Amino acid sequence: MRSHYCGQLNESLIDQEVTLCGWVHRRRDHGGVIFLDLRDRDGIAQVVVDPDTPDAFANADRARNEFVLRIHGRVRSRPEGTQNPNMPTGMIEVLAKQVEVLNTAATPPFQLDEHGRVGEEVRLKHRYIDLRRPEMIDKLRLRSRISHSVRAYLEGQGFLDIETPILTRATPEGARDYLVPSRTHEGHFFALPQSPQLFKQLLMVSGFDRYYQIAKCFRDEDLRADRQPEFTQIDLEASFVDENDVMVITERMIRQLFSEVLEVELRDFPRMPYAEAMRRYGSDKPDLRIPLELIDVDDLMKDVDFKVFSGPANAEDGRVAALKVTGGARLSRKEIDEYTKFVGIYGAKGLAWIKVNERAKGLEGLQSPIVKFMEGIVDALLDRVGAEDGDIIFFGADKARIVNEAIGALRVKLGEDLNLYTQPWAPLWVVDFPMFEADDAGRLAALHHPFTAPSCSADELKANPARALSRAYDMVLNGTELGGGSIRIHDQAMQRTVFEVLGITQQEADEKFGFLLDALQYGAPPHGGLAFGLDRLVMLMTGARTIREVIAFPKTQSAACLMTDAPGEVAADQLKDLHIRLRQKAKASSE
Amino acid sequence: MRSHYCGQLNESLIDQEVTLCGWVHRRRDHGGVIFLDLRDRDGIAQVVVDPDTPDAFANADRARNEFVLRIHGRVRSRPEGTQNPNMPTGMIEVLAKQVEVLNTAATPPFQLDEHGRVGEEVRLKHRYIDLRRPEMIDKLRLRSRISHSVRAYLEGQGFLDIETPILTRATPEGARDYLVPSRTHEGHFFALPQSPQLFKQLLMVSGFDRYYQIAKCFRDEDLRADRQPEFTQIDLEASFVDENDVMVITERMIRQLFSEVLEVELRDFPRMPYAEAMRRYGSDKPDLRIPLELIDVDDLMKDVDFKVFSGPANAEDGRVAALKVTGGARLSRKEIDEYTKFVGIYGAKGLAWIKVNERAKGLEGLQSPIVKFMEGIVDALLDRVGAEDGDIIFFGADKARIVNEAIGALRVKLGEDLNLYTQPWAPLWVVDFPMFEADDAGRLAALHHPFTAPSCSADELKANPARALSRAYDMVLNGTELGGGSIRIHDQAMQRTVFEVLGITQQEADEKFGFLLDALQYGAPPHGGLAFGLDRLVMLMTGARTIREVIAFPKTQSAACLMTDAPGEVAADQLKDLHIRLRQKAKASSE
Repeated sequence: MRSHYCGQLNESLIDQEVTLCGWVHRRRDHGGVIFLDLRDRDGIAQVVVDPDTPDAFANADRARNEFVLRIHGRVRSRPEGTQNPNMPTGMIEVLAKQVEVLNTAATPPFQLDEHGRVGEEVRLKHRYIDLRRPEMIDKLRLRSRISHSVRAYLEGQGFLDIETPILTRATPEGARDYLVPSRTHEGHFFALPQSPQLFKQLLMVSGFDRYYQIAKCFRDEDLRADRQPEFTQIDLEASFVDENDVMVITERMIRQLFSEVLEVELRDFPRMPYAEAMRRYGSDKPDLRIPLELIDVDDLMKDVDFKVFSGPANAEDGRVAALKVTGGARLSRKEIDEYTKFVGIYGAKGLAWIKVNERAKGLEGLQSPIVKFMEGIVDALLDRVGAEDGDIIFFGADKARIVNEAIGALRVKLGEDLNLYTQPWAPLWVVDFPMFEADDAGRLAALHHPFTAPSCSADELKANPARALSRAYDMVLNGTELGGGSIRIHDQAMQRTVFEVLGITQQEADEKFGFLLDALQYGAPPHGGLAFGLDRLVMLMTGARTIREVIAFPKTQSAACLMTDAPGEVAADQLKDLHIRLRQKAKASSE
Repeated sequence: MRSHYCGQLNESLIDQEVTLCGWVHRRRDHGGVIFLDLRDRDGIAQVVVDPDTPDAFANADRARNEFVLRIHGRVRSRPEGTQNPNMPTGMIEVLAKQVEVLNTAATPPFQLDEHGRVGEEVRLKHRYIDLRRPEMIDKLRLRSRISHSVRAYLEGQGFLDIETPILTRATPEGARDYLVPSRTHEGHFFALPQSPQLFKQLLMVSGFDRYYQIAKCFRDEDLRADRQPEFTQIDLEASFVDENDVMVITERMIRQLFSEVLEVELRDFPRMPYAEAMRRYGSDKPDLRIPLELIDVDDLMKDVDFKVFSGPANAEDGRVAALKVTGGARLSRKEIDEYTKFVGIYGAKGLAWIKVNERAKGLEGLQSPIVKFMEGIVDALLDRVGAEDGDIIFFGADKARIVNEAIGALRVKLGEDLNLYTQPWAPLWVVDFPMFEADDAGRLAALHHPFTAPSCSADELKANPARALSRAYDMVLNGTELGGGSIRIHDQAMQRTVFEVLGITQQEADEKFGFLLDALQYGAPPHGGLAFGLDRLVMLMTGARTIREVIAFPKTQSAACLMTDAPGEVAADQLKDLHIRLRQKAKASSE
């Protein structure tokens, strides 16, 4: 029905006849002539309709915004002075010979140009209109290109695209499952997978050697700002590999992706042990675009006459860390108060600081509510952090966990507020994670998941689980975890040891993961893999502000679709077929 | 960890050192030397372990079937007389220098060579072992190649890969939905999509122009032999197209796929109206590999003195059809009795037949229980079907629906039993479907779905819905429907008319499909598309006997996964979170 997309028109087509199909983006009368901006997924072309072609003119005259038209006409240069070099098609226009109205349009609930004036709710309800915005089409188009590039790379590396089930058994990620009642097995439920983890391990046991899938995953969690109940992973697994193999393969994938899709050449990703990341950045997903670092000053603070500092400095689980911001002495009292509030979100009880106005003047040259306690160590402190005139130093002093979270977050916020970025893209690998983390009651949980292989023997693991490291690795980009993976346990005895350390009884393990434990005894190869969050990757690569911008039909934070009005009510006999009833409404339902 | 896959070894590598990883497929001692057949996804290589390398020998000696080994050694020619030209690696072997046991294996529940001796249940329970069979790996590998080829083609044609939701609202296909209770919206349920139909139409309304997705779909139906509760569609939709455009694009896709993956060059697909397919083959998915055709003989039978024939011949909804089988006179009475039973499955009350032994002898030369009734018309009848000596003619006489189903199925069965195939692949398009089909009570239902555009005006549709044709098209291959699609309704008024004809009230339509009706009024482009059943396509292309062979982790006919034991029981507090309870076990649950 068309010869070209609107956005494809350019000066090489001058004097040629073209047929376009698209939507009226704007329409204006000017000097008895109608100008239509016709929009399709590739761009916008200007169409001129003259009263000399009366049928075409009559149809153009009827057309309103978002009418669907088919235009046949001749490409010509725009007259001098009306050219728009900022627009790809801005040097030409189409003089219409025929204008056909393919469909009319009621006045839309919002004009595309004015989407910012309506709330996100209105736009989500009329998602099919919001998706017409060129930015939205471009983002989803880029997403399609990203999926394509990833697939092409992985298939080139011998990975087979294998689908794993959506209707399955509860998986072990630990978040809440979405459940699906079974009609044929009364009282039984499927769970939607939180990841294809166990299936991909079984595929390795089967000898598929290299598996990948762009897979839907599901978590029924209270949604933080940027989570969705269903999300997409680039999931892969390989046999007869070690952690370096997996990191090399997937790092190349991401570098090729950035090169192909964004024309950005990323350098080799540094690899940083978890302990170093926590020490220097207070985070296991440090944003390395920001040059600020946490600096340990515990040793200096052990004997100061200020309990807030000396307490944590002397406690085994305490930490006192400084964060120097070059030029930060210009921050106002009000701004510092804001940052104090900000670190409070992470549990910090306050935010100590020292402004270095004139270091040469000694204490006189410093401005700070706390410096009076530090007379004896202030020079050593300023030397330690390399403070110069005009700098500010912030301090965190508390349990290490709180200091890391609070000052780590402050570091990122300062980087953003003061635009301290040194580079647009800062990827890295974080490695050497602990196997387990302890909660406040000392109970151990797997830091990744219980199928992650330790880098020590089973005996060492049992002897000192808290210090055991795993063979896991996370890829981090600009402070966001893009993906995580590990070498898995392929030995049944080791797998049982890890369950034991986690306090999972043998019976429980057999009940939940019996099929995996079974599989491990029939010749499981060494294997490992990784899963990337595709939505987040696309978000970073398109510069979107929320994950909802890179998903065609997203859900709200209460896990609803405003457009289709899902979830919805269902008929009582449907529930009866599924052997369930509503708790509250049981009495009212027609049984 | 490896230098080559086992299957990659050949004579070009002679005298080179290689490292292989894989499973012990077979192990035998022969003259003090151990022979290991090492298997990986690419094939099997013979490894020879000599007592001269004592460490390697000791490990090889320990190894049992399905042990996971890493072998380092030198490729050499097999000695004269031990070569196996039927095996890709049959001219060479690897003399091992090192044999490393990467994992042991307990005796598997069945040996791969002997999978036929255990029931499908055992193999589904230990699916990870069954998948080790080279045929299974090859089938899933071909599936991966098929997905790849389809994606490459569609992306080359400008189709964007866009994901649509899995947690959504009940969709209109009419089968039973899988439901997912919502935790955050009490008493409400998501449905898993039976297809992305409405979402892809909305993407067209948004201007994405060309969409595709390899999409998971779900139907909670009683499973016939070859259905799965979750299945995969190649789903696509395009704007500003007519039926010919969609057929040309997708026919090329399938032809390219067969060429790339199977090296089969399919010819142009014929297009056959639905009415012709029913008349000539009694089916809307005729298997054109079989040269038999149904031939109408109603006119000849109107006045015969045999009610079984003259009744349907004179009834408006009746049909009398003949099916001539060349050389079929050799069928035994017992075989004919079997076919009579067979057509009974489809509701036929009997199966009349005439064997043409010697046509020149007139009635004498015919053998038949019914020929006595046909004296006057038998010559015309034999001429009509072109009967020659040695042929048999079968007859169906009943309501047209029953004749079509019974004789259509008989045609396919005869084709199979007598191996009448004239070609390995016989694709075609079936077009010009009726819009609606009436049930016995005369209630109309959409033959495809209610978003299919009619090929007539709304007025004509309302005036005579039973005779209205749609703009739908099905692609059929070897008697299997590979895919179906249509041009959709893009006009709200027409959509409302179709709902009205279907007896759907305006309120009901707004409740169920309000968002689509809404979208149609804001500038919906003309659009259409198609969905292929990927599982079935792969099944045909791999020659698999069931759909379960081309799905990595399939479910049984009662919709269970024997490996993971899904669906499973869940804890009472999980149900409480979801605001539901079990019907029967409500009293017992811990509330």
